[in-house]
Amino acid sequence: MMGLGVGLIGSGYMGKCHALAWTSVATVFPDVRRPRLVALADATPELARQQAEAFGFSRGTGDWRDLISDPAIDVVSIAAPNQFHADMAVAALEAGKHVWCEKPMATSLKDATRMRDAARLSGKTAILGYNYIQNPMIRHARKLIAEGRIGDVNHIRLEMDEDYMADPAEPFYWKSEKKSGYGALDDFAVHPLSLLAVLHGRITSVVADMAKPYPDRPANNGGRRNVENHDIAQALFRTELGASGVLMVNRSAWGRKGRIALQIFGSRGSILYDQERMNELQIYMTEDPADLQGYRTILAAPPHPPYREFVPAPGHGLGFNELKVIECHELLQAISGEHDAYVIDFERGLEIERTVHAAAQSLEAGAWINVESISPQ
Amino acid sequence: MMGLGVGLIGSGYMGKCHALAWTSVATVFPDVRRPRLVALADATPELARQQAEAFGFSRGTGDWRDLISDPAIDVVSIAAPNQFHADMAVAALEAGKHVWCEKPMATSLKDATRMRDAARLSGKTAILGYNYIQNPMIRHARKLIAEGRIGDVNHIRLEMDEDYMADPAEPFYWKSEKKSGYGALDDFAVHPLSLLAVLHGRITSVVADMAKPYPDRPANNGGRRNVENHDIAQALFRTELGASGVLMVNRSAWGRKGRIALQIFGSRGSILYDQERMNELQIYMTEDPADLQGYRTILAAPPHPPYREFVPAPGHGLGFNELKVIECHELLQAISGEHDAYVIDFERGLEIERTVHAAAQSLEAGAWINVESISPQ
Amino acid sequence: MMGLGVGLIGSGYMGKCHALAWTSVATVFPDVRRPRLVALADATPELARQQAEAFGFSRGTGDWRDLISDPAIDVVSIAAPNQFHADMAVAALEAGKHVWCEKPMATSLKDATRMRDAARLSGKTAILGYNYIQNPMIRHARKLIAEGRIGDVNHIRLEMDEDYMADPAEPFYWKSEKKSGYGALDDFAVHPLSLLAVLHGRITSVVADMAKPYPDRPANNGGRRNVENHDIAQALFRTELGASGVLMVNRSAWGRKGRIALQIFGSRGSILYDQERMNELQIYMTEDPADLQGYRTILAAPPHPPYREFVPAPGHGLGFNELKVIECHELLQAISGEHDAYVIDFERGLEIERTVHAAAQSLEAGAWINVESISPQ
Amino acid sequence: MMGLGVGLIGSGYMGKCHALAWTSVATVFPDVRRPRLVALADATPELARQQAEAFGFSRGTGDWRDLISDPAIDVVSIAAPNQFHADMAVAALEAGKHVWCEKPMATSLKDATRMRDAARLSGKTAILGYNYIQNPMIRHARKLIAEGRIGDVNHIRLEMDEDYMADPAEPFYWKSEKKSGYGALDDFAVHPLSLLAVLHGRITSVVADMAKPYPDRPANNGGRRNVENHDIAQALFRTELGASGVLMVNRSAWGRKGRIALQIFGSRGSILYDQERMNELQIYMTEDPADLQGYRTILAAPPHPPYREFVPAPGHGLGFNELKVIECHELLQAISGEHDAYVIDFERGLEIERTVHAAAQSLEAGAWINVESISPQ
Repeated sequence: MMGLGVGLIGSGYMGKCHALAWTSVATVFPDVRRPRLVALADATPELARQQAEAFGFSRGTGDWRDLISDPAIDVVSIAAPNQFHADMAVAALEAGKHVWCEKPMATSLKDATRMRDAARLSGKTAILGYNYIQNPMIRHARKLIAEGRIGDVNHIRLEMDEDYMADPAEPFYWKSEKKSGYGALDDFAVHPLSLLAVLHGRITSVVADMAKPYPDRPANNGGRRNVENHDIAQALFRTELGASGVLMVNRSAWGRKGRIALQIFGSRGSILYDQERMNELQIYMTEDPADLQGYRTILAAPPHPPYREFVPAPGHGLGFNELKVIECHELLQAISGEHDAYVIDFERGLEIERTVHAAAQSLEAGAWINVESISPQ
Repeated sequence: MMGLGVGLIGSGYMGKCHALAWTSVATVFPDVRRPRLVALADATPELARQQAEAFGFSRGTGDWRDLISDPAIDVVSIAAPNQFHADMAVAALEAGKHVWCEKPMATSLKDATRMRDAARLSGKTAILGYNYIQNPMIRHARKLIAEGRIGDVNHIRLEMDEDYMADPAEPFYWKSEKKSGYGALDDFAVHPLSLLAVLHGRITSVVADMAKPYPDRPANNGGRRNVENHDIAQALFRTELGASGVLMVNRSAWGRKGRIALQIFGSRGSILYDQERMNELQIYMTEDPADLQGYRTILAAPPHPPYREFVPAPGHGLGFNELKVIECHELLQAISGEHDAYVIDFERGLEIERTVHAAAQSLEAGAWINVESISPQ
Repeated sequence: MMGLGVGLIGSGYMGKCHALAWTSVATVFPDVRRPRLVALADATPELARQQAEAFGFSRGTGDWRDLISDPAIDVVSIAAPNQFHADMAVAALEAGKHVWCEKPMATSLKDATRMRDAARLSGKTAILGYNYIQNPMIRHARKLIAEGRIGDVNHIRLEMDEDYMADPAEPFYWKSEKKSGYGALDDFAVHPLSLLAVLHGRITSVVADMAKPYPDRPANNGGRRNVENHDIAQALFRTELGASGVLMVNRSAWGRKGRIALQIFGSRGSILYDQERMNELQIYMTEDPADLQGYRTILAAPPHPPYREFVPAPGHGLGFNELKVIECHELLQAISGEHDAYVIDFERGLEIERTVHAAAQSLEAGAWINVESISPQ
Repeated sequence: MMGLGVGLIGSGYMGKCHALAWTSVATVFPDVRRPRLVALADATPELARQQAEAFGFSRGTGDWRDLISDPAIDVVSIAAPNQFHADMAVAALEAGKHVWCEKPMATSLKDATRMRDAARLSGKTAILGYNYIQNPMIRHARKLIAEGRIGDVNHIRLEMDEDYMADPAEPFYWKSEKKSGYGALDDFAVHPLSLLAVLHGRITSVVADMAKPYPDRPANNGGRRNVENHDIAQALFRTELGASGVLMVNRSAWGRKGRIALQIFGSRGSILYDQERMNELQIYMTEDPADLQGYRTILAAPPHPPYREFVPAPGHGLGFNELKVIECHELLQAISGEHDAYVIDFERGLEIERTVHAAAQSLEAGAWINVESISPQ
């Protein structure tokens, strides 16, 4: 008997990452049947055919709707540009397919709500590609927090920083257009918020600031063009469990490449994490003897599932792409009816979107905003 | 001919630190005449005499006013409890002494203003013990920023965290009383603000949050007592030079011991610093070739003044107490009329206090506050 | 037209790693035709069939000779136990297949020599699975050294440490038998020696020590059994380029998980690397201004080939398994006649084996040994 | 009643370090009577007088024998050039003074033996300035090892590296002359050996290599001059407690400034230390739960004596100079008859010298040497 039939829309960076996951998941996880790579859709038939061959899909198509209507396909990976997510996801769900959609969920709260509604109605599995939560070290942090190793969490600091917009000499491009979103706030903040969602819980209120390090940039036509959104954002927040916290994101932070730094403080200890050293987790515990207290650096190892499926030896290191393989495995668990599947589904994804919009509204208001006041509609 | 006559009020932790500075400064710095350690004042004559002998002062006294009126004394070190700073500093200045006062400056903005006014009137040198700015690595950061190595600074993150209030089982004590201040905000925030003052400039507006990790604590009489101020505080801010930033302080941060972490981002690079590794500075510069870009860790060394005065070999490390020796040297420079002396005087100290009060007011207002709106009176 | 036909012998840990590489290589590298996964051989037909299905091979077989005689197979991956490497590799080469053999090359110098001779005779590509050299950061180190960034290399320290034999309560098993080899010396030393081979050059003379942290271990039958080889080894060495160095390996080093630490000192700088942080490289260069000198930490990024093929964004991190994908790509380059393919072939592999045996002989001799004196026969 | 009378010979770098210790010790340690700084001797009367005033000594003298014969002096600090150590120490001991002599002990084994004999005969306290052992983190490591936290120690790696001889363009100076010693071996190795002495025990046998990164250097007269000793040395060793180990020293190691790195492996854990981060200690313990094992970084803090005497708050950091203050305190303890004083006395110092000479002899012999075979005469 054959495994699930897979369709992939988009074969750029994230599409390739999905393809690697689909092609590797059964090799890595012994409990998984090998998926059938049925069809790949991209902008043109030629590109689609070429990438289908490279990635091992049976056929390529220039029309994503053709892919969605293929009865051989059970699950659709959506790795197309953000503005298409909503239409593709809704169409796929309506066609009775499971959906694995890259983040950000959508470019408007309205679209995100539409996607959530379609998922509810279809009864199919619909998840978002928040792969950072799949890191065995993040799962381990989650387990340690749940065990009470750091006591009751009372303070959280979240940072996400890269430097791909840091060069003021870089010409204006679409990422700086207002219609592409708030800037760093929706580009980045969703990632640490996904981590917060699995490690702690929801944000209830927020006050934010956003800043432009460079007010304008060289335009392609020779002059200069005003930057329309914000490469830097920061917010103070409170959570449903009573913690205070700070969220900081910056896509023009020279020197930071893939930093997602967490500091989680509790009544009995604390946990630190930095995505740039994704195979390490630090914990401080007051249960240690006084003269032996200190942050211990735990290396990714077999006791931290599902690390063992990749390498049986500790400390050998997983990579960014392998988080997608784990996510793919969780998706397959969810599809097969496993209720504990560890994913950000469209319900939780919508919650994250609402938090982002609440932060943006707080800036306009110059005051704290309750996330609940942001209508999911 | 003899050096300056020194009086020291207070012989606890910070008093001892001043004593070490006064006794070491001429040994370390060849351009300094050895100061005369004239008198030490403490709560009782017995304690004062005992400590005077231990620290090498000629006499001890139970009355600080007696010390201030001693004509053999030229400069007064104030390391007494915070609530006495204002009276002592004003009295010393009025008696024509130079003043070296520990931070925080005072327990009210009114007192801090009174101290500033007395300093203005006296024409004497009056500085605050913001020793962290004296670290050769902080001075080096200042030089590198001034040279434009990281370009125009556009974003700053400041953290100061310790864990001495982190244990919820610790009984209530005076630090949790409202009358001792806002909590972490004035206890800690002044330190990163002093660093901001020398590395960048003034904060112009701020919105803050403050939190209590533990609403009450065991009372000495057996029951529980409500905590009256906040062990955690965070603020968003903007600076006079157009940077955005975040200030975070937490005195109940398990695992943090003496952390003062700076992240300073500019248009051409960034600088990182952590007081827990006070002999290191990290810098990222886009002037490096693309395939060689990365944070470099600079170890404290002779090219970073005044490290060389302590050890001629690089990488051997200064300690916290030695920052006070450097501060003492700067004080002596200031007293001898050196206009470039690198200190936080009472003028700048008052600015720092105003920022702290602006942050506190923003919490009450639930909105941004302009620091200028905080009357120094 | 179809890609190369692949046969895999062995489906344990390293077999799985090969399978992942074969299934991913064409997805990652756009210049590669998708290989055909023809057959997988393992100890029993049942196991082989099951693993073939899981890993995506067309068929499974319980007889590796059957696999080697399959005309649809062009290249054979050997991931079987070490004692079979020689027979399998020689048979495959004699059958006109290319060979990709896991390290260590063989369990005797005689066998290794036999493999080298068969490779010479066949004219086929025959490489060893020294995957650590494939890390983009190691390649980058190689480029930086070749560019003269650290000047002439004069001193090298190599360490490889894990702790899988560190527990004295672990029962005796085959790794402690004399017939399995010298112990840490051949188990581990070949890895740093492979790195030395690509980063610097050959070792010419050596003096070694080997030690047993635990002279005996619990035997399965209830008593205790003497440990017959050495879990710790260290050697002083000289290289053909005139550098001095130290090689240290320890498989009972509590706390070390996958450490392979390099320190390479030259006349103008130095380079540091640790496999446990495999996405980082540190370099110190005297070409930096004096007050800015320090080790810079370079994160894996697109300027370090072939990182870009995996992720276009810097600092996102590769994992241990992905090094095998790179190695697979280099193997394909070699097979297609690319003379610069970056691999450890059987010639260089034999050199590494000779160095290991020279170290062992120096212990018996209690004196320095010239590697040239170790006959490849 | 007054404290001990102190004489100091030499007012260069280490003399200044002694002066700082003598002037600070009573301020830091409450159990110490303030010493009297009686006299300072240096090369000329002028220099001596000037430095005496700067450092707070009552008088200066150009004749060290005059200082030694001063009845007001009880203890003599020797911080003069190495070749004078033996004559000064022996003379001081014969005059009934206690002696605090900088390392290295002497420039020949014969001189070192003479010093040891004089110390024995005098019955006075005679210690060497091995200040690195005084670091609270080293003492803490010693306590943890003694408690069995890492089990039985079976392997040790010691490194000491700096880069003050790393520049090949630096002109030849006396450090490269044969008569100044073996080079890095006696310049550096004594430091890690002092740490080994307090943390573990004696070395019993050794085989060493020494290397010259630069065979010649620019001579002052314009040509080039052959380097006569070795800037790099490494040795394999065995200890009296059955551990194997490696000792590596390099004074031309670009990038290393004050590195003294220790790796100590035992049957239940391991300890790491690096002098460049002298306020940190790392320990790995198998007594931790499996999923929580990792190196923990312990910051210097009040539970690590005598840190508390310097600062009551944890994580604030001691500096290199403060180790000398601790050493001074231990010296005072020893003088007052405290048998547990934690110092390297002339007996142990001679042991360290013998080990260094054994290493040097092993190079000539091209074979292992027993340290016992090195006659202390």
